[in-house]
Amino acid sequence: MTTIPSSATSSLATRTLAGTQLARDIRAEVTATAAELTLGGVTPRLAVVVATDDESSAWYVRSIAKTAAKSGILCDVVDLGADATADDIRASLAALSTDPEVHGIILQTPLPPGADFEDLAASIAPEKDVDGANPLSLGRLAAGLPAYAPATAAAVLALLDHYEVPLSGRTCVVVGRSNVVGKPAAQLLLQRDATVTVCHRYTRDLDNYTRTADVLVVAVGRPGLITAQHVTGDTVVIDVGTNPTADGGLVGDVDEAAVSGLVSGLTPVPGGVGPVTTALLLKHTVHNAARS
Amino acid sequence: MTTIPSSATSSLATRTLAGTQLARDIRAEVTATAAELTLGGVTPRLAVVVATDDESSAWYVRSIAKTAAKSGILCDVVDLGADATADDIRASLAALSTDPEVHGIILQTPLPPGADFEDLAASIAPEKDVDGANPLSLGRLAAGLPAYAPATAAAVLALLDHYEVPLSGRTCVVVGRSNVVGKPAAQLLLQRDATVTVCHRYTRDLDNYTRTADVLVVAVGRPGLITAQHVTGDTVVIDVGTNPTADGGLVGDVDEAAVSGLVSGLTPVPGGVGPVTTALLLKHTVHNAARS
Repeated sequence: MTTIPSSATSSLATRTLAGTQLARDIRAEVTATAAELTLGGVTPRLAVVVATDDESSAWYVRSIAKTAAKSGILCDVVDLGADATADDIRASLAALSTDPEVHGIILQTPLPPGADFEDLAASIAPEKDVDGANPLSLGRLAAGLPAYAPATAAAVLALLDHYEVPLSGRTCVVVGRSNVVGKPAAQLLLQRDATVTVCHRYTRDLDNYTRTADVLVVAVGRPGLITAQHVTGDTVVIDVGTNPTADGGLVGDVDEAAVSGLVSGLTPVPGGVGPVTTALLLKHTVHNAARS
Repeated sequence: MTTIPSSATSSLATRTLAGTQLARDIRAEVTATAAELTLGGVTPRLAVVVATDDESSAWYVRSIAKTAAKSGILCDVVDLGADATADDIRASLAALSTDPEVHGIILQTPLPPGADFEDLAASIAPEKDVDGANPLSLGRLAAGLPAYAPATAAAVLALLDHYEVPLSGRTCVVVGRSNVVGKPAAQLLLQRDATVTVCHRYTRDLDNYTRTADVLVVAVGRPGLITAQHVTGDTVVIDVGTNPTADGGLVGDVDEAAVSGLVSGLTPVPGGVGPVTTALLLKHTVHNAARS
């Protein structure tokens, strides 16, 4: 492995691993399948359960609803209000789970105080768990059984495959150990025969690990976490962070200006993992509608 | 980290991390709880479902039954025969899951052709899944929710705690990615804030990873896999391998003679992880009996 010192002035041609074209391709496939299903009398339907007033959550939900509509998928936003109890949310998820018209269910975060995400997500029927939130989905994934992976983790793998980044026998380092990204992404990479290291806030000398990575997946939620000292010229960096900036923009966890020219590939934020995630949520939904 | 070259002739005092005393302590606690429960009218009962003629499996089941009996736990060996179908096994697990007299269920391997372990283990009621075989248990474990870990993975952690090996912020390398040991052990170490790397047959230059380990967990099933080149003087080695030898003995995955004097600590085989595993199976069983 060639090592580029962090003080390097020479510049690599860092490949921009955009997700926009891949997302378009997935959405085109989804739109075609949704149209076929609708002709056959089954219109794919996604339900998003919301129990928050959070602005960025509302923005995300609107963006899913809009993309779903464009693809011919019905999207029900079930807004229980920010004062919903855990029991309210559980009852809503259970009702949607048995509703034959609903093919996908997402439980939006944040949740009200006293409502535990993993505990509630267990009420989502596994076959409708299009965002892999039910602990059973995580377990089936880890055990190598069919299950929907959390869409963000699935998007990481879809991007790596789209850009033909080899994984078998390669060193993959995942920074972040959330149940929705870090842990499932690590499982998916392990399934693909990568040697996988999971780092987090207690990891000492993070750069000692990240500098060994052929593929570095960063999903922490801290802007500027990954900078020149953390990478080498061989590293392909997948930036899962989406941190709002003061001017209303979005930045990832990677200092793009610092690592650009020092790594082999880098996903942009926005326009990297994000659009692929939404497209995969819809893909999972039509996939389940086609089975039902 | 101090590195001892593999050619080192100087000898460290390698600590033997035996599991016998810890297993005795756990069994004493189990026996006391079982006696109390029995006085109260509930005798803890463990069911072991067997569908194989395999000799070493039979030996293991006899050893569990004997240890259970000594601890005041009833142990039913449900032998379905080597020609049992997947449906036979599933029906047996489902019946035991609803039997109020049964507090723990183990599905013994190997299974007949056509019977998939993870698929069948999903029929074990999670609260009776004392060996963490149901994918839901693995998912709950990964999600940080209460669940029984596979007893062998739990034994790895119990031994590390017994010998007060620090884990938070340390580098732990797990060799092997089975659903019953490697993956759950990695999850448990991650929960304890270790930085965790999972290696396997596709890992290139295994020693590059293992030599960084403060704690090295080996669970592959290949005698002599780990030798002097794979360790340093700081490594604590947990050997989960149990490989039968020609003379009727048992060896681990670690070449004990080669690494002894080169590592900081090493579990013996037999007498390391094994007895703790059996004790924890029984502990999980009385734990569930006490809740029921």
